[in-house]
Amino acid sequence: MRTAIYPGSFDPLTNGHLDIIQRAAKLFDRVVVAVADNGEKRPLFTLGERAELVREAIKDVEKTEVGHFHGLLVDYAAEQAGVAIIRGLRAVSDFEFEFQLALMNRKLNEKVETIFMMPRETYTFLSSRMVKEVARLGGNVHCFVPPHVEAALQAKYGRRRGKKA
Amino acid sequence: MRTAIYPGSFDPLTNGHLDIIQRAAKLFDRVVVAVADNGEKRPLFTLGERAELVREAIKDVEKTEVGHFHGLLVDYAAEQAGVAIIRGLRAVSDFEFEFQLALMNRKLNEKVETIFMMPRETYTFLSSRMVKEVARLGGNVHCFVPPHVEAALQAKYGRRRGKKA
Amino acid sequence: MRTAIYPGSFDPLTNGHLDIIQRAAKLFDRVVVAVADNGEKRPLFTLGERAELVREAIKDVEKTEVGHFHGLLVDYAAEQAGVAIIRGLRAVSDFEFEFQLALMNRKLNEKVETIFMMPRETYTFLSSRMVKEVARLGGNVHCFVPPHVEAALQAKYGRRRGKKA
Amino acid sequence: MRTAIYPGSFDPLTNGHLDIIQRAAKLFDRVVVAVADNGEKRPLFTLGERAELVREAIKDVEKTEVGHFHGLLVDYAAEQAGVAIIRGLRAVSDFEFEFQLALMNRKLNEKVETIFMMPRETYTFLSSRMVKEVARLGGNVHCFVPPHVEAALQAKYGRRRGKKA
Amino acid sequence: MRTAIYPGSFDPLTNGHLDIIQRAAKLFDRVVVAVADNGEKRPLFTLGERAELVREAIKDVEKTEVGHFHGLLVDYAAEQAGVAIIRGLRAVSDFEFEFQLALMNRKLNEKVETIFMMPRETYTFLSSRMVKEVARLGGNVHCFVPPHVEAALQAKYGRRRGKKA
Amino acid sequence: MRTAIYPGSFDPLTNGHLDIIQRAAKLFDRVVVAVADNGEKRPLFTLGERAELVREAIKDVEKTEVGHFHGLLVDYAAEQAGVAIIRGLRAVSDFEFEFQLALMNRKLNEKVETIFMMPRETYTFLSSRMVKEVARLGGNVHCFVPPHVEAALQAKYGRRRGKKA
Repeated sequence: MRTAIYPGSFDPLTNGHLDIIQRAAKLFDRVVVAVADNGEKRPLFTLGERAELVREAIKDVEKTEVGHFHGLLVDYAAEQAGVAIIRGLRAVSDFEFEFQLALMNRKLNEKVETIFMMPRETYTFLSSRMVKEVARLGGNVHCFVPPHVEAALQAKYGRRRGKKA
Repeated sequence: MRTAIYPGSFDPLTNGHLDIIQRAAKLFDRVVVAVADNGEKRPLFTLGERAELVREAIKDVEKTEVGHFHGLLVDYAAEQAGVAIIRGLRAVSDFEFEFQLALMNRKLNEKVETIFMMPRETYTFLSSRMVKEVARLGGNVHCFVPPHVEAALQAKYGRRRGKKA
Repeated sequence: MRTAIYPGSFDPLTNGHLDIIQRAAKLFDRVVVAVADNGEKRPLFTLGERAELVREAIKDVEKTEVGHFHGLLVDYAAEQAGVAIIRGLRAVSDFEFEFQLALMNRKLNEKVETIFMMPRETYTFLSSRMVKEVARLGGNVHCFVPPHVEAALQAKYGRRRGKKA
Repeated sequence: MRTAIYPGSFDPLTNGHLDIIQRAAKLFDRVVVAVADNGEKRPLFTLGERAELVREAIKDVEKTEVGHFHGLLVDYAAEQAGVAIIRGLRAVSDFEFEFQLALMNRKLNEKVETIFMMPRETYTFLSSRMVKEVARLGGNVHCFVPPHVEAALQAKYGRRRGKKA
Repeated sequence: MRTAIYPGSFDPLTNGHLDIIQRAAKLFDRVVVAVADNGEKRPLFTLGERAELVREAIKDVEKTEVGHFHGLLVDYAAEQAGVAIIRGLRAVSDFEFEFQLALMNRKLNEKVETIFMMPRETYTFLSSRMVKEVARLGGNVHCFVPPHVEAALQAKYGRRRGKKA
Repeated sequence: MRTAIYPGSFDPLTNGHLDIIQRAAKLFDRVVVAVADNGEKRPLFTLGERAELVREAIKDVEKTEVGHFHGLLVDYAAEQAGVAIIRGLRAVSDFEFEFQLALMNRKLNEKVETIFMMPRETYTFLSSRMVKEVARLGGNVHCFVPPHVEAALQAKYGRRRGKKA
């Protein structure tokens, strides 16, 4: 059985992430969507919320499950018996950073291979950051995220607005 | 009448921005330089100050005016009856981000087209960030910004130094 | 009246080109699709064939017309009273070359501005070169080009195969 | 059983190619190294020679085999029941072209996924083109290719020199 | 005598930095490794600590010395009679930013030339940021930094952990 | 005494090349402008013509001389006791290729360091290829090349036109 790890912040999961998960599930026996704790950054959603949004999104995608990790990705991958780390590539700037990260991870653990996959081209512009920015400004994000994520974004920004008022 | 929107933080306006504005004014009937409120970032100049620095810079450029917006750019563009959003491109890294932004904006409102223009090649290295960094360190910025912006930068960093002392 | 020039080899025109033409037609009073003679390269279609394939494709797009040029693009643009040269950008590698070309054109004639536009994201992978390669290998190109261009490609590669046999 | 296709010109195979093949063999049940016929380009080695050089290089790598194809890669992949096309990425310029190719291939056959892998960082500078250039100029290529490929390059360029003399 | 300045944050020095210093020492009569004060960023190590870690690393590299600066790099370079500023390039994204910085520095002082050098390819993935991230998460960094820097990182993150507990 | 090699096709030398040569002459004791024989490519000017155009351009630049080479650049550099190979960088696409070339050269001879320098920003768009294209189409190239190169281009393209007529 071959396991692949698909790590990320997923703050929150977008349709682009979901597309990669579905594609990966055709290539491996088990795909673990691994939500990163992210230590010092300030995510919009808590680790628990982010994992829950992923869980809901992938509940009908066979061979996939959600997990989370706090330390080094390669340690988590080893623990899960992962043979591959999957990263989605949208653009050249993604690629450069991902390339450096993958080389570093290879130095830290040679047994886990990083592979890169492409989302549908209609998702190449999608990022969690842009989705949050649009939602924060009151824009409609229903084309970019699953319905339950859209609801979570509205709740989050609604609450925030409430606080300010 | 065709209106184009030239959005940005303009924190502060540089000669590179001004160059794009002058070029755009030859292609459209009305160019609105739209200063973004930027919500959560911390600009050096307030929205009012930034808009005022733009206004002074473009007062003699025909067909141009200054505006500002708080929410989604595409909503502001629609409100101003804009047919085009103008973005200046200096480098490849600009381009990638701008490309994603433009695709997102197209999803949010298909009626506004984003077009990219190039500043004079002598301005390709110019950015508000670098100008602020040079000014903060006491360097001479008179080649990079109009005189009134230079004065505003000196006043701002002078006051700051004063505070620290 | 503002005229824009959209130059290219158009060997042959793809749906990506057509998309840019339609977008440009909303921003200018007249868009001249300018087929380049290309001197020393070896196009698949002759200058006349390429122009005819463009003409057929844009016959229902208002404010557009086809032209062709042999010498410097900026001279042709001046002759047509063009205020802008339009270039489609699909990717970073496009951008770099286009940037250099645009700076060179600006040196040769400062009065014509180059502006960059984006095709639909579903066309970002499209290029005349790839379309020809797929057609040459017998693949189906009906999603990538208008029907009359598909027919022209089949005729061309059919004839070629015939010659070899 | 999951089959992956690793296509290329392999003119000739380098240590960078071999590194990718070995990594891919850990992720899939069967890896077909697919030598492209390349129609109109002029390779240094014939299709038969290129395939033979690959065969020799991978003879001890389990789960791998060599093949060749003349038409569309996606048709060959389907014929071989491939679920994935593997491409090695060395640099940003690789990536852009590969991205466009992969999107085109996805349009032609949605069932085959393209995945990207990284060679060892010591091979990031390696390309068949550079190896041929060095060999042509009489440089030592034994660090860049397996011994039997080095011998084949020497034979090829030796013969050529002989012809000229 | 020709002096070159190698500026940076060195927060902390990595083996990639050291590699560049050694290469530069072969090309110039004197190489000043110039630790930047960095004003508003929050480095992990203080200016004094960073300079000391550099000093220890280069103590046996002839023709090199350590320095530090607070204001504009070009002013410091002039003060040190530097004819060249050296920057290491690892990747395309580095390059773009460095290019803009170098053009800005040239505007500020035309007499100092910026030159770019490449570290060993095994260090292309190395950055102080990644090293700190790995160390923070408890990973082993002994391949990436000299032993005394590794010790300093452990001490720093050990103390931090202590604080939190 | 430190010697630097500045290699290239120089088909023909442009003002951008000349700018790099002048900058390099401030950093080294001797700069050899090394015209490459280029084996299989078809240059516009012969090796002798290209070297002569360089010689004329640098005759008043102290510490510089012209040379030419047929085989591997690193062999020529060693023969000339060069400690550095100088390459001009204009754009990201340049950089990638140059990076690979430099790593390859380092593998072939570790003793020669490649360093990258930037031309004036007004020359970033300049390339021999574009200059030839403009000249071929009858455009004015006097801003892009020294007067004697302009004359040589006119003579070359004049003769060509003559032949066709």
